[in-house]
Amino acid sequence: MPAKSMDELVSLCKRRGFIFQSGDIYGGVQGLYDYGPLGVELKNNLKAAWWRSMVYERDDVEGLDAAILTHRLALKYSGHEATFSDPMVDCRSCKARWRADHLDGKCPGCGSTDLTDPRPFNLMFKTTVGPVDDGASYAYLRPETAQAIFTNFRHVVDATSRRPPFGIAQIGKAFRNEITPRNFIFRVREFEQMELEFFVEPGTDEDWHKFWVDARVSWWQAQGIPADRLELLYVPADELAHYSKATVDIMYRFPHGLEELEGVANRTDFDLGSHTKGQDELTLTAKVEPNRDSNTRLAIQDTDSKQWLVPFVIEPSAGVDRGVLAVLNEAYRVEELDNGSSRTVLALARHLAPIKVAVLPLKRNHEGIVETARQIKQNLQKLGLGRILYEHTGNIGKGYRRHDEVGTPICVTVDFETLEGEQTVTVRDRDSMTQQRVPLAELTAFVRDYFAESR
Amino acid sequence: MPAKSMDELVSLCKRRGFIFQSGDIYGGVQGLYDYGPLGVELKNNLKAAWWRSMVYERDDVEGLDAAILTHRLALKYSGHEATFSDPMVDCRSCKARWRADHLDGKCPGCGSTDLTDPRPFNLMFKTTVGPVDDGASYAYLRPETAQAIFTNFRHVVDATSRRPPFGIAQIGKAFRNEITPRNFIFRVREFEQMELEFFVEPGTDEDWHKFWVDARVSWWQAQGIPADRLELLYVPADELAHYSKATVDIMYRFPHGLEELEGVANRTDFDLGSHTKGQDELTLTAKVEPNRDSNTRLAIQDTDSKQWLVPFVIEPSAGVDRGVLAVLNEAYRVEELDNGSSRTVLALARHLAPIKVAVLPLKRNHEGIVETARQIKQNLQKLGLGRILYEHTGNIGKGYRRHDEVGTPICVTVDFETLEGEQTVTVRDRDSMTQQRVPLAELTAFVRDYFAESR
Repeated sequence: MPAKSMDELVSLCKRRGFIFQSGDIYGGVQGLYDYGPLGVELKNNLKAAWWRSMVYERDDVEGLDAAILTHRLALKYSGHEATFSDPMVDCRSCKARWRADHLDGKCPGCGSTDLTDPRPFNLMFKTTVGPVDDGASYAYLRPETAQAIFTNFRHVVDATSRRPPFGIAQIGKAFRNEITPRNFIFRVREFEQMELEFFVEPGTDEDWHKFWVDARVSWWQAQGIPADRLELLYVPADELAHYSKATVDIMYRFPHGLEELEGVANRTDFDLGSHTKGQDELTLTAKVEPNRDSNTRLAIQDTDSKQWLVPFVIEPSAGVDRGVLAVLNEAYRVEELDNGSSRTVLALARHLAPIKVAVLPLKRNHEGIVETARQIKQNLQKLGLGRILYEHTGNIGKGYRRHDEVGTPICVTVDFETLEGEQTVTVRDRDSMTQQRVPLAELTAFVRDYFAESR
Repeated sequence: MPAKSMDELVSLCKRRGFIFQSGDIYGGVQGLYDYGPLGVELKNNLKAAWWRSMVYERDDVEGLDAAILTHRLALKYSGHEATFSDPMVDCRSCKARWRADHLDGKCPGCGSTDLTDPRPFNLMFKTTVGPVDDGASYAYLRPETAQAIFTNFRHVVDATSRRPPFGIAQIGKAFRNEITPRNFIFRVREFEQMELEFFVEPGTDEDWHKFWVDARVSWWQAQGIPADRLELLYVPADELAHYSKATVDIMYRFPHGLEELEGVANRTDFDLGSHTKGQDELTLTAKVEPNRDSNTRLAIQDTDSKQWLVPFVIEPSAGVDRGVLAVLNEAYRVEELDNGSSRTVLALARHLAPIKVAVLPLKRNHEGIVETARQIKQNLQKLGLGRILYEHTGNIGKGYRRHDEVGTPICVTVDFETLEGEQTVTVRDRDSMTQQRVPLAELTAFVRDYFAESR
């Protein structure tokens, strides 16, 4: 049972240090957010799970981490300069500007119906690079991470000797100057993407497309999103992006409605074809602009036939921030307890929890208890699971509740019994709220096993 | 024995997929680089080691991950709008522009001595945010990650109840429009920083400053940089930045000379004082501009005396890319072997190596060998150490050499003996080049122990 409203999530996120409005001591900037102490862990854990699944657990994917500032010719030939825009209208009455396809004929600011006709507004941020500001020395902040994968195709192939089918994966920031950012971290101006470009032989592309749709749905389920909260949208032919032969959007029921969490597109040979040198000598399926600037052939030569092949590309492209919002929303619940009280719990998948284990000494001034608790924290930290928190808390019961609310899977309490006889600690489970005594000597193995299967 | 020249490193980095010039299929953009399949792992490993040491292994540091696009008022009150510039000169002869303090009176382009007087060139990248381009709606790409830590100070304190001494750590991209980028990834326009702002009570700041200088030097040593390759530079009083009471630069002997790897500054109460509301009611040591825009008090109230305290800040600020360059340079060596041949080795610290273990099947078409090798890869991957590579290689000896060159600490070879009797694999060590047979059943524990102490 997810959150009842976006407001509940926004409030929890600010109060407990997941996500803050950026620059709000100066009034804030619309569409920009900062991830706080717990948010950065949750986001990093989600990214790590993606990287593990895409790069580490496969044998056919290489990683990349390219610059954000992007050569303007890359975004010319990709088609972004000409087409990466939203329709915008001006309100003639209050001068505000709005995204035309999000309106119903009235200005959301002042209510006037005196609006201009829609015109395209390019969403790319532009900036001057170098000391000469002559209007010609500019670059873009990348509007997607994908393009750098294509422009580095030759480098990666040369360094790794890969042949299709193989992929290049990248996680990183992207920027879109949204006309009207909204819905918390769903539609923002600075966000993070997790994109795989998977290069395949033409003819095998439809099978690989299906494979990746299935693989991505499974992955989101492992992140805590049940199948019945996801829907596949087969984008109709007349709504496809210019580069796409087929796109399947993985839709999730966000607090504000059913919207795209990830898109899986069959981009054909459009991208490598667009950026390649010597297009005329290659057989391209996609309709591309003639390229007079690229100095590199983005194709694979068959070792026997010497024929050049331009691979097709299947692209699963996921939004990190949307992913964070989705897993937070799914994990959020308010439970009625037997004693008539209630508790708020973030039932996050264990590998996503910002704090893995909280180690709580019963007394903050008892040397033996404090020393043992600190030692436990150091030992558990070495497991490499993520953040283990050593924390003084006045009241253990309240400590458990606070950790329920931020999703900490287990709390370990060190008390007087820990120093005596069998030397046990109390291990308290977030979801069941059960407590059990575990011998100190077995704690590390207990915790390792507890987190072993979550990924 | 580090690399003989920067060229050796640049060449290795491109050839083996560590670092590529960004956008070079379109001629490249000066001062921008992309990290390839091995570079992204090395860089991520270095960042993870910093985060582990700063956030996970301490009990007094919280993390943050803020937006890159930054409210212009934040960079006005930080002093960047007024002072974040380098002196620039124009060559009147060839019209090129140069950084004045890197010249010796002659244009490096055409040799002319007809240069203008130096004038300040602000290094911040600017971009328009929102649909209205009226010259007033702009933001900056952050020139350092630090400022967002200060502007989020209140949020973090409220969410975590921290009191000094405590720190906020952040890793992320920063951008400086360098007039003349140079020396590979040393002086670039887009780079990554690892910054800790550690808030302390005034009066304890000098002790904490010393603590952090020592801690950071130890950390760099654990990353593979011997103490005798580092030097501490106590920045002279008349060269200190406007916010600094004292700065110690940790200098490293890069291929192009002795230069800053990390700076550890005592920023006093300058930053919180600059961004705070109600400066007049607070006792500030630093000289700050009057702030009429901040809506938040960035100070800590003493629970007993009700007095407001503005903490001092100690800032260890390290460059990720410079760190990557330094560890690559230290690790690089060409060894003469007994048989008269030589080998290139990257003797990276184990936790930094891009590939932890390469699993090599002796035969690529033998089902039992291939299946066993794949299973070993999957099992070792679960240790969570980083990338484990399953790789077909024609010739095992050549495979070892290729992995020496990219720093893979161990190679595991699966051969016919693996399928028989005691079921052993060959484990080959990068540094000693020794090979030993390890029973399959003990391999996971062997590999876990091998990497356990490296951090």
